[in-house]
Amino acid sequence: MKNYNIPRSMEWIGGIDGHLRLLDQTLLPIETTYIDCKEIGSVHEAIRSLRVRGAPAIGITAALGILVGLKKIPPGTTLNSHYETIDNYLRTSRPTAVNLFWALDRMKRKFLEVKNHDDHHGILSILLKEALSIEKEDREMCQNIGRIGSTLVQEGFGILTHCNTGGLATAAYGTALSVIFTAFEQRKSIHVYCDETRPLLQGARLTSWELLQAGIPSTLICDSMAAQVMKEGKINMVVVGADRIAANGDTANKIGTYGLSVLAHAHNIPFYVAAPSSTFDLTLKDGSEIPIEQRSHIEITAPFGKQVAPDGVTVYNPAFDVAPARLITGIITEKALITPVNEKNILDSI
Amino acid sequence: MKNYNIPRSMEWIGGIDGHLRLLDQTLLPIETTYIDCKEIGSVHEAIRSLRVRGAPAIGITAALGILVGLKKIPPGTTLNSHYETIDNYLRTSRPTAVNLFWALDRMKRKFLEVKNHDDHHGILSILLKEALSIEKEDREMCQNIGRIGSTLVQEGFGILTHCNTGGLATAAYGTALSVIFTAFEQRKSIHVYCDETRPLLQGARLTSWELLQAGIPSTLICDSMAAQVMKEGKINMVVVGADRIAANGDTANKIGTYGLSVLAHAHNIPFYVAAPSSTFDLTLKDGSEIPIEQRSHIEITAPFGKQVAPDGVTVYNPAFDVAPARLITGIITEKALITPVNEKNILDSI
Repeated sequence: MKNYNIPRSMEWIGGIDGHLRLLDQTLLPIETTYIDCKEIGSVHEAIRSLRVRGAPAIGITAALGILVGLKKIPPGTTLNSHYETIDNYLRTSRPTAVNLFWALDRMKRKFLEVKNHDDHHGILSILLKEALSIEKEDREMCQNIGRIGSTLVQEGFGILTHCNTGGLATAAYGTALSVIFTAFEQRKSIHVYCDETRPLLQGARLTSWELLQAGIPSTLICDSMAAQVMKEGKINMVVVGADRIAANGDTANKIGTYGLSVLAHAHNIPFYVAAPSSTFDLTLKDGSEIPIEQRSHIEITAPFGKQVAPDGVTVYNPAFDVAPARLITGIITEKALITPVNEKNILDSI
Repeated sequence: MKNYNIPRSMEWIGGIDGHLRLLDQTLLPIETTYIDCKEIGSVHEAIRSLRVRGAPAIGITAALGILVGLKKIPPGTTLNSHYETIDNYLRTSRPTAVNLFWALDRMKRKFLEVKNHDDHHGILSILLKEALSIEKEDREMCQNIGRIGSTLVQEGFGILTHCNTGGLATAAYGTALSVIFTAFEQRKSIHVYCDETRPLLQGARLTSWELLQAGIPSTLICDSMAAQVMKEGKINMVVVGADRIAANGDTANKIGTYGLSVLAHAHNIPFYVAAPSSTFDLTLKDGSEIPIEQRSHIEITAPFGKQVAPDGVTVYNPAFDVAPARLITGIITEKALITPVNEKNILDSI
């Protein structure tokens, strides 16, 4: 069935003596280069230098990084103290990444559970299984989002997406892009329109690269062109990811998402959000309680090192905006399609 | 009254022995450098190398360029044949610019009218007066757009604009920016939000520079942020320029304009177009008859020489889109405010 290439941000090669292969995302979209991590130092460097990025991908990489670290135990060191050393070391690679700590905590619990009941080989086998479980669970969650979301995609659909929500940030498939990958896997004829997503151009740099890798027909546009392609009748659905979803369904996502939700509504185009259930923050009543991070003016005045705006210009650079629940046709999670989007349906589905 | 600096793209310095001073727009917004053109070669180079750009500005520059050229008549050459030489030479500077030919034709008519009835000094005086008239008429037209449009601007208004419609492309003031300059001249407290305007970033490079020069409070945003600033209640009106307006009022303008018209409507924000009457093309029944130019994919995949999208990506890059008359609150010309926008009101006003 699978006749195309879903890009993978990381992969464990071999058995307990194997190694971790990472896609170097800093070289995208110009070069597709993989790094074979056989020493823990290179895993640490890859996380620190953003060669691997996206919360789930960082967690999986750190979990597999433990296996890389356990391959060589320095003479005169116990397994116990060496585990402690590499665990602490990996935690310094990206100290703000919540998923890094979550994955390392989970690996450590497993290690403490088995370290006195098995031999070295047995312990490594169990830990590799645990790390691969973290990867598998993430992949399955993404695939479930794709399975549920792809039921909304009809033959011949034009689909607009924004920012990067693909496999690069996860084990594979991603969230909104998983809907697209899965529909394509089902041999539906589709065409994807991909917003470049200023200021950081994740759409141009990452999403269009993932779509090309998978062989999915796609067209890159500037964010300001989305309305025009909608008007031309090229778009049958919009699907985006989410950073945070409030109890009523208001969804914070990459800047530009709110405008797309308004434009989709004006053109009678269904607008979907695809995200894991963990994205819901039920402590937030609605979107007005979601704080909007402001980012550096440099992203706008000097994109990629080239100054394009005059010195002294004032800039507004919100990282996110909030699409209101009333403009969202449905929210696709790994468990269900939530539609219409309201507090009751959300509570029933997550 | 005038207590601020409206940027001028060109200025004649001195009398008939004077010279032409041009703002080098290719160095904006990083450097503000003026070129003193005392030889016709430098006028030709400035037009050819886009140091001066915008249809009206090119016409005025060429007209004043005739004066630069007439200052030195090579020995053994008649005024008549020298005029012919410099006129032909300037016509090669940008052979696709309609305004270049229009302005040079007008100067030549005046020359043919007076060349046998006056002495050399008198002929130069009359030609300089003619060139300065072309400049003055353009400036007055822009000022009239500003005078009429500024009546729509209330104290404390936030105004969103797109692309560059300022003094740089004209003698001064521009079209949509003239509304803003004039409101500021009237000491209204305003704040301008300026779309960067991908792909060529005319908003970031030129409009934000003009606003800074004039000392008008402004904020530069990415195109995808316009919806968010509207939602935050920061925008009281949108004003944009026009490339071509059909008989029913449908308006072609820089890509992104259509989306803004939809977003403004959804937020109950008035949406105005500011353009000279000459922008109307009454041979076009409506916007569907306006052809949309497609531009190079490089503008999106490698902005300013830096590749940001993968090799082989497909790109859609329309230069313009069309805001429909039903979403345009009014069209501001040098003669009238046309509102509501319909065929009858347009015919009555132009």
